[in-house]
Amino acid sequence: MRLFKTVDEVRSFINSVRREGKTVGLVPTMGYLHQGHLSLVHEAKRSCDVVIVSIFVNPTQFDPNEDYQTYPRDLQRDVALVADAGVEAIFAPEAEEMYSQGFSSFVDVTGVSECLCGASRPGHFRGVATVVTKLFNIVLPDAAFFGQKDFQQVMVIKRMVADLNMSVQIIDVPIVREEDGLALSSRNVYLSQEERKAALVLHRSLHLAKEQVNEGERSAQQIKERIIKEIQAEPLANIDYVEILSVPDLKPIEIIKGNVLLALAVRFGKTRLIDNSILEA
Amino acid sequence: MRLFKTVDEVRSFINSVRREGKTVGLVPTMGYLHQGHLSLVHEAKRSCDVVIVSIFVNPTQFDPNEDYQTYPRDLQRDVALVADAGVEAIFAPEAEEMYSQGFSSFVDVTGVSECLCGASRPGHFRGVATVVTKLFNIVLPDAAFFGQKDFQQVMVIKRMVADLNMSVQIIDVPIVREEDGLALSSRNVYLSQEERKAALVLHRSLHLAKEQVNEGERSAQQIKERIIKEIQAEPLANIDYVEILSVPDLKPIEIIKGNVLLALAVRFGKTRLIDNSILEA
Repeated sequence: MRLFKTVDEVRSFINSVRREGKTVGLVPTMGYLHQGHLSLVHEAKRSCDVVIVSIFVNPTQFDPNEDYQTYPRDLQRDVALVADAGVEAIFAPEAEEMYSQGFSSFVDVTGVSECLCGASRPGHFRGVATVVTKLFNIVLPDAAFFGQKDFQQVMVIKRMVADLNMSVQIIDVPIVREEDGLALSSRNVYLSQEERKAALVLHRSLHLAKEQVNEGERSAQQIKERIIKEIQAEPLANIDYVEILSVPDLKPIEIIKGNVLLALAVRFGKTRLIDNSILEA
Repeated sequence: MRLFKTVDEVRSFINSVRREGKTVGLVPTMGYLHQGHLSLVHEAKRSCDVVIVSIFVNPTQFDPNEDYQTYPRDLQRDVALVADAGVEAIFAPEAEEMYSQGFSSFVDVTGVSECLCGASRPGHFRGVATVVTKLFNIVLPDAAFFGQKDFQQVMVIKRMVADLNMSVQIIDVPIVREEDGLALSSRNVYLSQEERKAALVLHRSLHLAKEQVNEGERSAQQIKERIIKEIQAEPLANIDYVEILSVPDLKPIEIIKGNVLLALAVRFGKTRLIDNSILEA
């Protein structure tokens, strides 16, 4: 497996892969890899000849008061995990390689990026759309793989790819969970033992909502209220949002019909976790 | 010569060109072609195997109160001109082909896009950067050709290409002028006979500034004042801006040293014309 730190190295690798007529899959990550990332890698391996994993904690998608500095990093461990998975290359640039002096171009996806995490984290999706555009332009992948845990991110990127005529297929892969239901996240390492236990309320809430829909409840408001009550009963949990929205436009809805998104963001201590599920009625 | 109306047609043409190992040059235009555009085409023909000219009056780069509806169009004449020039293909999509329902992704180049025309025409360069990104993603050209008459546009696009890692070489081509000095522009057709005569003050002013620099003047303020006086002496002229800025960052400067940009935007009746020149000290 090759480890690249510069754009030029990646370009020359991709050119040689292309000359052999092989297809390329990109798995963009911020590193500190877990089984969720590896499920993206496996999906990419299944459908592309060559897989490149990018590992880059992207500064432009963090607010100044967020955890950019402390975001967990362990490149050595990531390299070992990715090599075991049979990936051909890692692209792990420094911030200066991606954002040179005078950098001032950004990709903005309006609409779908403005609710949920876009409302809680202003500028977050601008940073995501910008870095993903850069990665697409550097790697020129046939397909790119994203986790459904960041459901809104997937919607933002699909919108961007369609709007800007990018030639890449976006493939989203189901959430991977711990045995007890907690969605895998690099930020789970921030949790104390008590917070880790409290965070199970996320998965419990998603399950509860599904049950309610199965029992015939169709009012988004009723279900949200039930979930808010459930989460508020957990003393260590602080709700950021509980929303039920249309897919793929992420507009508020009143009546649950067809497939809709239930999305949660909740703080446990200093750690903000997200989770989501599709409700089907 | 082929005339394409859809993205899919262009993609399939470009794929076949690529399979033959040929290089592709793109000349993005808004049509109503003149010798300025044709000089871009000639430059593209010189350096690329296959040249595609896009003809698209891009709605997102016009303000609601600007001349999008009335902007001159004559596709039949454009097709003939481009065919004569030996171009392989035209891409002339309808607005709906480029901006489908729900379109909501934009490319913003901050900094260099905020002065000059960016100040006079809010949103203009966002529209330009967005449509040029789309065209680059559709055509995937090796090189793209832009006129120096839109000097700021060239700086915005070069910045965008560098920042977003786009794999295209940006080539800028000198301004083409009428014999009497008026820079060619599709908007020149708007001018009445008197306005056409008055508009010569633009070229006269650029010339005057060069003379002043040659005579040893180094104060940007002095030169601007002299030019403003010259333009104000022309009763049909209304100044939008007269600026002397650094290259390529387009920052205000006080002392002329090295190469700097003198940029003019002046209205003659309802018609806003721009012109510019590099001053060398």
